[in-house]
Amino acid sequence: MKRIYLFLAMAGMLQTGFGQSKDKDINIPDLDNYKTLKCDFHIHTVFSDGLVWPTVRVDEAYSEGLDAIALTEHIEYRPHKDDIKADHNRSYEIIKQYAKDRDVILIKGSEITRSMAPGHHNAIFITDSNPLDTTDFKDAFNAAKSQKAFIFWNHPGWDAQQPEKTLWWDEHTYLYENGCMHGIEVANGKYYFPEAQQWCLDKKLTMIGTSDIHQPIQTDIDFNKGEHRTMTLVFAKERNAESIREALENRRTAVFVGDKIIGEEMWLKDLFDNAVKIENIEKKDKSVRITIYNDSDLRFYLKKIKHDPGITYFRDYEIKPNCRHTINVKLDSGIISGKIDFEVSNMLAKPGKGLDYQFRF
Amino acid sequence: MKRIYLFLAMAGMLQTGFGQSKDKDINIPDLDNYKTLKCDFHIHTVFSDGLVWPTVRVDEAYSEGLDAIALTEHIEYRPHKDDIKADHNRSYEIIKQYAKDRDVILIKGSEITRSMAPGHHNAIFITDSNPLDTTDFKDAFNAAKSQKAFIFWNHPGWDAQQPEKTLWWDEHTYLYENGCMHGIEVANGKYYFPEAQQWCLDKKLTMIGTSDIHQPIQTDIDFNKGEHRTMTLVFAKERNAESIREALENRRTAVFVGDKIIGEEMWLKDLFDNAVKIENIEKKDKSVRITIYNDSDLRFYLKKIKHDPGITYFRDYEIKPNCRHTINVKLDSGIISGKIDFEVSNMLAKPGKGLDYQFRF
Amino acid sequence: MKRIYLFLAMAGMLQTGFGQSKDKDINIPDLDNYKTLKCDFHIHTVFSDGLVWPTVRVDEAYSEGLDAIALTEHIEYRPHKDDIKADHNRSYEIIKQYAKDRDVILIKGSEITRSMAPGHHNAIFITDSNPLDTTDFKDAFNAAKSQKAFIFWNHPGWDAQQPEKTLWWDEHTYLYENGCMHGIEVANGKYYFPEAQQWCLDKKLTMIGTSDIHQPIQTDIDFNKGEHRTMTLVFAKERNAESIREALENRRTAVFVGDKIIGEEMWLKDLFDNAVKIENIEKKDKSVRITIYNDSDLRFYLKKIKHDPGITYFRDYEIKPNCRHTINVKLDSGIISGKIDFEVSNMLAKPGKGLDYQFRF
Amino acid sequence: MKRIYLFLAMAGMLQTGFGQSKDKDINIPDLDNYKTLKCDFHIHTVFSDGLVWPTVRVDEAYSEGLDAIALTEHIEYRPHKDDIKADHNRSYEIIKQYAKDRDVILIKGSEITRSMAPGHHNAIFITDSNPLDTTDFKDAFNAAKSQKAFIFWNHPGWDAQQPEKTLWWDEHTYLYENGCMHGIEVANGKYYFPEAQQWCLDKKLTMIGTSDIHQPIQTDIDFNKGEHRTMTLVFAKERNAESIREALENRRTAVFVGDKIIGEEMWLKDLFDNAVKIENIEKKDKSVRITIYNDSDLRFYLKKIKHDPGITYFRDYEIKPNCRHTINVKLDSGIISGKIDFEVSNMLAKPGKGLDYQFRF
Repeated sequence: MKRIYLFLAMAGMLQTGFGQSKDKDINIPDLDNYKTLKCDFHIHTVFSDGLVWPTVRVDEAYSEGLDAIALTEHIEYRPHKDDIKADHNRSYEIIKQYAKDRDVILIKGSEITRSMAPGHHNAIFITDSNPLDTTDFKDAFNAAKSQKAFIFWNHPGWDAQQPEKTLWWDEHTYLYENGCMHGIEVANGKYYFPEAQQWCLDKKLTMIGTSDIHQPIQTDIDFNKGEHRTMTLVFAKERNAESIREALENRRTAVFVGDKIIGEEMWLKDLFDNAVKIENIEKKDKSVRITIYNDSDLRFYLKKIKHDPGITYFRDYEIKPNCRHTINVKLDSGIISGKIDFEVSNMLAKPGKGLDYQFRF
Repeated sequence: MKRIYLFLAMAGMLQTGFGQSKDKDINIPDLDNYKTLKCDFHIHTVFSDGLVWPTVRVDEAYSEGLDAIALTEHIEYRPHKDDIKADHNRSYEIIKQYAKDRDVILIKGSEITRSMAPGHHNAIFITDSNPLDTTDFKDAFNAAKSQKAFIFWNHPGWDAQQPEKTLWWDEHTYLYENGCMHGIEVANGKYYFPEAQQWCLDKKLTMIGTSDIHQPIQTDIDFNKGEHRTMTLVFAKERNAESIREALENRRTAVFVGDKIIGEEMWLKDLFDNAVKIENIEKKDKSVRITIYNDSDLRFYLKKIKHDPGITYFRDYEIKPNCRHTINVKLDSGIISGKIDFEVSNMLAKPGKGLDYQFRF
Repeated sequence: MKRIYLFLAMAGMLQTGFGQSKDKDINIPDLDNYKTLKCDFHIHTVFSDGLVWPTVRVDEAYSEGLDAIALTEHIEYRPHKDDIKADHNRSYEIIKQYAKDRDVILIKGSEITRSMAPGHHNAIFITDSNPLDTTDFKDAFNAAKSQKAFIFWNHPGWDAQQPEKTLWWDEHTYLYENGCMHGIEVANGKYYFPEAQQWCLDKKLTMIGTSDIHQPIQTDIDFNKGEHRTMTLVFAKERNAESIREALENRRTAVFVGDKIIGEEMWLKDLFDNAVKIENIEKKDKSVRITIYNDSDLRFYLKKIKHDPGITYFRDYEIKPNCRHTINVKLDSGIISGKIDFEVSNMLAKPGKGLDYQFRF
Repeated sequence: MKRIYLFLAMAGMLQTGFGQSKDKDINIPDLDNYKTLKCDFHIHTVFSDGLVWPTVRVDEAYSEGLDAIALTEHIEYRPHKDDIKADHNRSYEIIKQYAKDRDVILIKGSEITRSMAPGHHNAIFITDSNPLDTTDFKDAFNAAKSQKAFIFWNHPGWDAQQPEKTLWWDEHTYLYENGCMHGIEVANGKYYFPEAQQWCLDKKLTMIGTSDIHQPIQTDIDFNKGEHRTMTLVFAKERNAESIREALENRRTAVFVGDKIIGEEMWLKDLFDNAVKIENIEKKDKSVRITIYNDSDLRFYLKKIKHDPGITYFRDYEIKPNCRHTINVKLDSGIISGKIDFEVSNMLAKPGKGLDYQFRF
């Protein structure tokens, strides 16, 4: 009888309490017409080659203020299988309710894990992972497709599979042409793949960024230094799984990796518009002071581009998070209005090319 | 001509910009009927024995989200006087506009700096510091009093002046009885003086906490470790100097030093009420789960006190900042409502005694 | 064939590399005649109710510079057992070589997990965990004893099992008298149990401090704030498992929890002797300056105690890590040598009593 | 009499003590034949437009483990001059003994502060700053030259003076040809000027990096995030002022700014050699594992360059500080020795070009 009492105690009955906070949340503004959801669609647990129990992934997501996650265990690579006996759906099942209780949207997924080509691909929004366990890679993709999966190519520039350069193989053409590739990881962990960004622009594929986390998250990400996991910003109509799907299908995403935000120009512009607001413009004879406020946790690096030669201002400028900035502009005689032109060099609209923007006065 | 151009450049005309953020602000809730203002009334600059230019003190205050500060240069101790030639009002004058521009309330003060007794005292809300420069200490206090100063005794337990214990001297009785002592520093820097808290309670004096900062603030305070400067929380009707004065006169303060909050019981209770809210009470047979949310940057340590023996719950509990907590309570048969009693051990209503509090269900 | 290639790649063949550093190591000095080993003998993994894979515990230990660890899975409580199928020795087996490769001493252990009394106890230095899985608690302890286990009582003041106060039960007398209790956790996680310290002193039991970690370590310990896991400092003749055992049997330990070090007076004194050295004594007429250097990562809080009334010095003093300090002492006329007496208030020789120490000049 | 007692107390007699530690020191290895000295030759205090008292600059330098500093007050720009009455030598005089007591090498300097051209220049190793206060800029430089100053051009790309691009003006040719320019700031604060690096390479000028600090150092540099002030690494025969001068004259420097080290190739190579050591090479059939240890606080980013096509290894690799790394290399059949070629992309031997390096096996 004592022993039963013990187990109740363990299960929380007599545990005196517990707490949880969103202490690592990052404030990224919504767009004009869409909510900005912070999503990570590439995560591992002990059920494949990850190193934590599935619930830890929900706790981490909660603490970081993520809106949605997908556990994507490798189908073909399960190094702990001698000890962990479970089918491919199990880690999802374990946290289904746990995620719901913490209001973290959980999307079912799996990682099709093949040598190159075609390499590794995540299928998300699936309903059953087990049919993806096949001999031929094409069968695995077809099984995912038949479940209406959203499929993206993982870490296309991973040097273990692409040791010299980031190549597009025939197998990728096959997948693309057969409706089995809807997006590509433009960033995975700390790595950004410019070739993948260009492919997404050219082929109308969705840009994805993921942590691909295997370790406890704090082992890889030093939050105290202001680091964050690589994630996909999904610009969704509502905060739910269906809206995330709709946004992914319509390529309304950006990738947040390190201090860079990578995406299609229209979304980057919309995001900057909503992060940085002009608060005041103070005109004097031959000068103007523009006061802006960055009401976000994002940092922006500005770089002067081609501009009216009668208007003199910074060459480089850093807009800090949650910070009010005053920018001084010198005007040649006779100029009373105009604009300062710059590139937001850490918002990459194309490989090597920042977002063009201007402040008008 | 070039040289003139240079100086304009220096003065900000061509400086490309600058920014400032409240990145070290601490969220402390308002009370039911009063605004909670974060104030530091004991600060030095190079104009006495401090080590920074006066504007730095405003920048620091802004960054930490302080509502009000007073520069309190020593009248009698000015080690930099061979190089800095100025009267006792000068550091205040230098930052008067600078503080106003940043919406930091600036209160004029000076530190009467005598050996023990009576030791060091701050006179704030004065209008002219120069008349405080006298030979006899009584003349200095009378000069302050005649300007309607609010006067408090600084660091009553400073071991350089009270090497064995914290004593009340005849001179303090003189000051107290002649209307020249309205408060005492219950905390100065990292030091808390329990005797001073008891004197405030017994003699109806206002409890004050200050940084007494001489160094650049980050030299003494490690903000990255969650440290903060010692400050006075002033519970004021409005956010302005007059309301601060009114609150000080009516002893509506608490002292925030390290992880402790020290004050009269009614204000501590009001503060805890507004920081920690019960969100949900889930009753089951023989148990209850109380969900609370701490909507502040404060941390609270709870310690069980005398309570209904049929109700079993934590012995010690830590409520973390901005955190949702679930507290489990076990009930003896037949109990369906009641309360859990505890002391908030880091809210000191008296020396050695935390605030008594309960959650009812 | 491609698939085989893939698995080789996964196993590290084509992984481009990896690194590991002791970036969280804490420097604690050796004693005069013993090495100071940093040990944690209470750790969980997914093989009981912990949340990480066993290798993570070795990586954490390496990174923190620990000398020795024991995984101590619950025998009776295995909430992941529906998925993880393994005997009680398995988590140890998984990391045996992994720990050796990283020079982390691995000691085999298990947690006998019973309701109160006798509560939870760790048996370490065992050879086979499976025989500890018994119905009657006495059989479990005897199985451990027959393997020459070193056994200690865990978290004696855990409020889930001791809801009102920290009590010694008849079952503990039984264990103690039958050679089944050799130590007690004086600290577990962030909790210090003063009653347990007194029991250790009275009954000649070894003082133990452990993390009892279930989460990824960084979830509970904020290393960036200077926090560390609770650990046992073992004062051993050599850095190996046998010497650790010998030291435990001879009660040469101290417990490092938060900013406190708890232990028998002789070891605390030896540790302070080796951490803080007098570098210089500069005597002047009526004063002396003592320069000390703290060549450790430990912080010490000094508090003046009964002393020669002709010698005036600090009331409280903080010796910071890796810091040179100059202490000023004022002397009455005629005093040319003597000592300053103080208590190191965070080195607890008894509950509520710091280590008495002096600097002589 | 009491008042005299007070001042003694203030001056340290009764101050109970103080401490100082090198808690922000960075470990950078010595070269094969030279000591690596960490130096900052561009620093301001309240005596020009800086915001701290001169002693603060020594405390900061000590804490960061700097070997040498120069205070370089503006000659022509002294915004605090209404309050601070002193000649141009004064801030140096104030800290001469203070720096010596803390073993910080103090080099006398001043900043010649002119609009562009020639802009701002530091003259260090001077003996008297006052003669530099002249109307014509040439007279100022000649006054410095006649004192055998080492003179370098400050922030050549500062946008307040070079709003569109970093230009070399006729005045710079004049200074260069008349022996009044010996170096250029390749980095100032967070800014790196690639044009200046190229000029140094082409014209045999010394590369200098400085903080140009005006604020308290922690306001600009977040040490908790691993940031450091921009500094000049001087590769000197001895740790003294004369050796620093000799090294500067012979261009044995590198510039440490952010995560970059900028310098002439031979010094970068020597530095990398001494930071990163091969510890072990483990050859197997068709593969080799190279174990390296980075025994420094520096971080290095490696990028594969042209290499033997039969040797497959990382494309990008990060060597972390104080970290042991194992690098996996795959070999084509028949290869048993060779090398992996890479560029250390954050050690800039030329603008846009990292240091070429290889590990041989």
